[in-house]
Amino acid sequence: MIEWFDDLALGMRFKTADKLVTREDIKRFASEFDPQPYQPYHLDETAAERTPLKGLAASGWHTAAIAMRLIVDARPLGPHPLLGAGVDDLRWLAPVRPGDVIHLEGEVIELTPSKTKPQGIARIKWTAFNQHGDPVYTVTPIGLVPRRPSG
Amino acid sequence: MIEWFDDLALGMRFKTADKLVTREDIKRFASEFDPQPYQPYHLDETAAERTPLKGLAASGWHTAAIAMRLIVDARPLGPHPLLGAGVDDLRWLAPVRPGDVIHLEGEVIELTPSKTKPQGIARIKWTAFNQHGDPVYTVTPIGLVPRRPSG
Repeated sequence: MIEWFDDLALGMRFKTADKLVTREDIKRFASEFDPQPYQPYHLDETAAERTPLKGLAASGWHTAAIAMRLIVDARPLGPHPLLGAGVDDLRWLAPVRPGDVIHLEGEVIELTPSKTKPQGIARIKWTAFNQHGDPVYTVTPIGLVPRRPSG
Repeated sequence: MIEWFDDLALGMRFKTADKLVTREDIKRFASEFDPQPYQPYHLDETAAERTPLKGLAASGWHTAAIAMRLIVDARPLGPHPLLGAGVDDLRWLAPVRPGDVIHLEGEVIELTPSKTKPQGIARIKWTAFNQHGDPVYTVTPIGLVPRRPSG
C-alpha cells in the first residue's frame, strides 16, 4: 500500500471514483460562492446562454472542490491526510454541465525529498474528465508527504 | 468606472469587503468537499491538533471559494462577469481559523491584449489577509476581459 513519501514513484497513477454533478449542486454552490451578480451564469440558464460558456456550467471553484473530494476519497496516500502548500497549473479546460459525471486521473510527476525535514514534496498532476472523456479541469497540488520512520 | 480591459492599468489596486469565517462554515464545507476521512482536520478539533496545522482550520478550497465570493462582490470589472481560464501561484500561506475575518487586496500585475479577439488577459494578484494583517492565501487568476467596443 502507498502510505509514505518513500512509497511513491515517478509515473505512478491514480484514479478516483465518479461523481454526478447536478443542476441543484451547481446553483447551491454558486449562490454561496460565485453568484456573479450582473450576469449570474452559474445560477440562471438565460444569463448563462449570453456568456462564452453558452449554457449553465459549474463555478470553476465548485469543480475544484468536487475534485478535492474525489481525490480525498481515493486516498492516494493511504491513512495520511492530504496537506498542500498550494497548487500549480490550475486550469478549467471545458464547462462542467448539469448531469455531467466527473472522475479524476492522477500521475506522479515530481518527487523532491526535503533536506531538513522527514518529508518530501510530491507533485501529482490530476486531470478531471467528464463522461465523454473530455478533460474539464487540471491541477497539480504541491503535496507534503511524510517519510517512512526509520528503525 | 473600470469596466473594460482598456480601463485597467498596471499597479491598479482593489480591496474587497470583510468576511467572518465561522466554525460552522468550516465544518459544513469540509464535510461536503474535504472530509479527510482518516484524520478529519477540517472537521474535528482533536484530529486537527495532531496535524501540522495545530488546530481546526478551513479547507484550502473553502478559503479559495470564500475569496472568489469576496472578489465577485467587489466587482473589479464593473458589470462584466469574472471569467478565467485558470489561476497561477495559488498558495495557502497560513491557516484560516474559526472566527477569522478575511478580506482580499488585489493588484493588476500583467495586461496582455489578445491579437485575435476583442479581449485581453488581465492578471490580478489577490492576497487574502486575516484580522491580524497576516496573509493567509494568494492567487493570480488568468482573467478574460472584453475590450471597449469601438465607434
